[in-house]
Amino acid sequence: MRLGVLGIVLAAAALPPGAHAAASGETIALEGISGVVPPCATCHGTHGEGGGEGLYPRLAGMPAAYLRRQLTMFRDGTRASPLMSPMAKGLTDADVAAVAGYYSGQAAPFPPLPSADAAQLERGQTLVTVGAWERGVPPCRDCHGPSLQGVAPAMPTLAGQWSQYLTAQLEGYRAATRSGDPLGLMGRVARGLSESDVRDVALYISSLRPGVVPQPPRPATAEAYTPRPQTADGFVPPPDSAIPDTPFGDLVRLGQNIFQDTPRYAPGFAGNALSCRNCHLDRGRAAASAPMWAAYVHYPEYRKKDNLVNTLQFRIQGCFRFSQNGKPPVADDTALTALVSYFYWLAAGLPVGIKPKVASYPPLADPSLPTSRERGAKVYAANCVLCHGEDGQGSAAGGQQVFPPLWGPQSFNWGAGMHQLDKSAPFIKHNMPLGAGGVLTDQEAWDVAAYMNSQPRPQDPRFEKDVETTRKLFHAGHEHDFYGKEVDGRILGAPDAE
Amino acid sequence: MRLGVLGIVLAAAALPPGAHAAASGETIALEGISGVVPPCATCHGTHGEGGGEGLYPRLAGMPAAYLRRQLTMFRDGTRASPLMSPMAKGLTDADVAAVAGYYSGQAAPFPPLPSADAAQLERGQTLVTVGAWERGVPPCRDCHGPSLQGVAPAMPTLAGQWSQYLTAQLEGYRAATRSGDPLGLMGRVARGLSESDVRDVALYISSLRPGVVPQPPRPATAEAYTPRPQTADGFVPPPDSAIPDTPFGDLVRLGQNIFQDTPRYAPGFAGNALSCRNCHLDRGRAAASAPMWAAYVHYPEYRKKDNLVNTLQFRIQGCFRFSQNGKPPVADDTALTALVSYFYWLAAGLPVGIKPKVASYPPLADPSLPTSRERGAKVYAANCVLCHGEDGQGSAAGGQQVFPPLWGPQSFNWGAGMHQLDKSAPFIKHNMPLGAGGVLTDQEAWDVAAYMNSQPRPQDPRFEKDVETTRKLFHAGHEHDFYGKEVDGRILGAPDAE
Repeated sequence: MRLGVLGIVLAAAALPPGAHAAASGETIALEGISGVVPPCATCHGTHGEGGGEGLYPRLAGMPAAYLRRQLTMFRDGTRASPLMSPMAKGLTDADVAAVAGYYSGQAAPFPPLPSADAAQLERGQTLVTVGAWERGVPPCRDCHGPSLQGVAPAMPTLAGQWSQYLTAQLEGYRAATRSGDPLGLMGRVARGLSESDVRDVALYISSLRPGVVPQPPRPATAEAYTPRPQTADGFVPPPDSAIPDTPFGDLVRLGQNIFQDTPRYAPGFAGNALSCRNCHLDRGRAAASAPMWAAYVHYPEYRKKDNLVNTLQFRIQGCFRFSQNGKPPVADDTALTALVSYFYWLAAGLPVGIKPKVASYPPLADPSLPTSRERGAKVYAANCVLCHGEDGQGSAAGGQQVFPPLWGPQSFNWGAGMHQLDKSAPFIKHNMPLGAGGVLTDQEAWDVAAYMNSQPRPQDPRFEKDVETTRKLFHAGHEHDFYGKEVDGRILGAPDAE
Repeated sequence: MRLGVLGIVLAAAALPPGAHAAASGETIALEGISGVVPPCATCHGTHGEGGGEGLYPRLAGMPAAYLRRQLTMFRDGTRASPLMSPMAKGLTDADVAAVAGYYSGQAAPFPPLPSADAAQLERGQTLVTVGAWERGVPPCRDCHGPSLQGVAPAMPTLAGQWSQYLTAQLEGYRAATRSGDPLGLMGRVARGLSESDVRDVALYISSLRPGVVPQPPRPATAEAYTPRPQTADGFVPPPDSAIPDTPFGDLVRLGQNIFQDTPRYAPGFAGNALSCRNCHLDRGRAAASAPMWAAYVHYPEYRKKDNLVNTLQFRIQGCFRFSQNGKPPVADDTALTALVSYFYWLAAGLPVGIKPKVASYPPLADPSLPTSRERGAKVYAANCVLCHGEDGQGSAAGGQQVFPPLWGPQSFNWGAGMHQLDKSAPFIKHNMPLGAGGVLTDQEAWDVAAYMNSQPRPQDPRFEKDVETTRKLFHAGHEHDFYGKEVDGRILGAPDAE
């Protein structure tokens, strides 16, 4: 006789936790622990294929750390589930690790492809690859990885999940009945989705398979688009679907690709794991992160940094040199022309020579307390570790950087604007955590910027003689800047401290 | 007893012309020809200093050809003058040449500096150096030479002339009582001037001395200017007086200088006597000659000419390579950055990515008759020789090119757009003769473009193998293009025909 699921659950709930011998993950999954938990496979399948027409999620291949985290949250109630919580309460830490490891290592058949029309799938594909930033929705892939393969420890595999399960979870996030999402990020994101968005994105994601990297949809024929004069207030750049099917359009697309994944599309010039999009969200469109359409209209411009009138090309070369710690392309390299073409295309309709306020990160008042690395470390642990890791190195998945490294050899160098607290704090305040810009207090933003920017990072490429000389030459007047300052007994930026 | 001027004139008018022996210019000037003409010096002074408080013009140092031309016109009545005509009728061609040579070779004191306030002089200086193109007034120096030293044969020396005389002549042109100006050009220009313009420009010119090259006035402090969003219809670029007193402003000024006098300000890159301004009038502002503000907003753009997306820098490099038959600056050379900065500054307020209609020369219908070099030669003789010369080589004065060469080694090469009749005919129609755009019929513009562009000029720098190959590669589909075509028994563009 097989018990119904509810029967199993109720039976399990009656048992005392932890009072059992260690068992392998396979055993727990396939046989359960006698008198403690029923076999996971009853609902999730022998290989973690899930079931119940998507009532029970697919677990096969999920990051083990993610599965551990969920079971732990079921156990302690952080993630409420009348089904899972009672069972999880019977598991020891060792059980949790064992069964998580088992399902993480499984390959399993995928649910049947959902029935969906092309327009639904295309809308879902857009949400996955492009997002809907104007509603606070970053693309799914920005956190779940380029093929939605999941990013340990907090981001589950989504590709190939049952669409019914995805829909139920997103609806649960919207209704705040699903909890346990770190920093409440998924709740925020889901509340930016409409009911039809939820359906479409779930259908599309279910049709994906790990290893397939979805690209933003491209219409068979470019959407007709006639730029109209606009001002910077509420400026809306043209939609990607309007990038023309012409050699110019091809270059714009290349520019966007370089912008989105610099190490891959500009490998000769990128010197670290960062991409342009890391500091300029929504493909360089987001008003809160110095959008590229705003940049386009105020160059050439004199900059004190190099005591020179910067063309847009020169300015971008500076990004390659400092923020991307690389070797800038020459001024007429195709990579630069592609980026300039992309920015030009984004700026369609915006008046030349009228510098938009949003050309810089939004303003942030000076900190009311002197910045504190110690307080910053706590802010970091609470809000940033999730994506950027305790070591600040972010995460990669499928050979692509998902979350950028914030310090160390793969991050921006001491010449990049972002190492100055008065640039990084406003960026953090208004844009971080990704999808939840604005949740930190001003002081928290300043403090965590101090924490991030008092870590080692690559040398300023303008380095001359020693760190004192270099500081005098290039960092004078930078009040909020750790270059050349002593932190924990080491001089930041000194050659031996890198 | 000295006769009054009127008495001399009446006496002279009674004598039969040409019935006298040859006399030197000095003799005619200082003693007259007995029974034929009174001494010129009576009114114009021993050394041509003029007199009568500016009633009689200064002649010293005038181009001899100009003086000959005036005397000849007085003689035949083309230039009406109740004073001069009767005397001129008594002069033989030899007399005219002799006396013109005499005064042309003289140095003489200048009239006293006129009394004028600084604002008047500055307005005059603006008209001399910048003009008022919006009223059809090119700067005086564009025809009279950089220091208004005169350009033989038709353009008199103006610098240091009596202001009263200048005023009287300009008023005469405005009222159409002074005649004999070639193509009626001065009449057109003068009718674009107000009474106070006439006064101010005359005062300023009178204060000039040959050899001094006036520059456009620059205010002690840049005029405050806030760009406002505008569209291309009736677009007005910022005034030069608003170029800021900053490193950016310095670069804009350099860009304008390169634009206005390329051989001087970009000597390493200019390959002939042409400047950017020769094809883009009014410092690149004039709507009828593809203004630079219009260019700024539609690059980067794909161009079939090189099968490439052109940045603005690349496009300008093309001008250096073809129109200026030179060696283009590299993409981040200061010369290019200066030009781009100047164009950017001109475009302030214009929306990005909306290509203004005026970005190309205004349209011109296809010729109703097949173009004819023969008819074109006649159009040229009647309208163009004045400035560009019979040999098409234009004129220089004071070491600066005043009127550009239209063919030959100092003109644009076979790769320049201007060698195509469908580019040059619209330019000519709407802009030539300088200050009188629109006077030629469409057919005349086509025909004279054919005449100009069926002359030898420097090789297409894309030349490969032979002219047939080069024509196929780079001139295919150019219906209105003489490159590689046989004219008068020679193949245009063939190496031996250059």
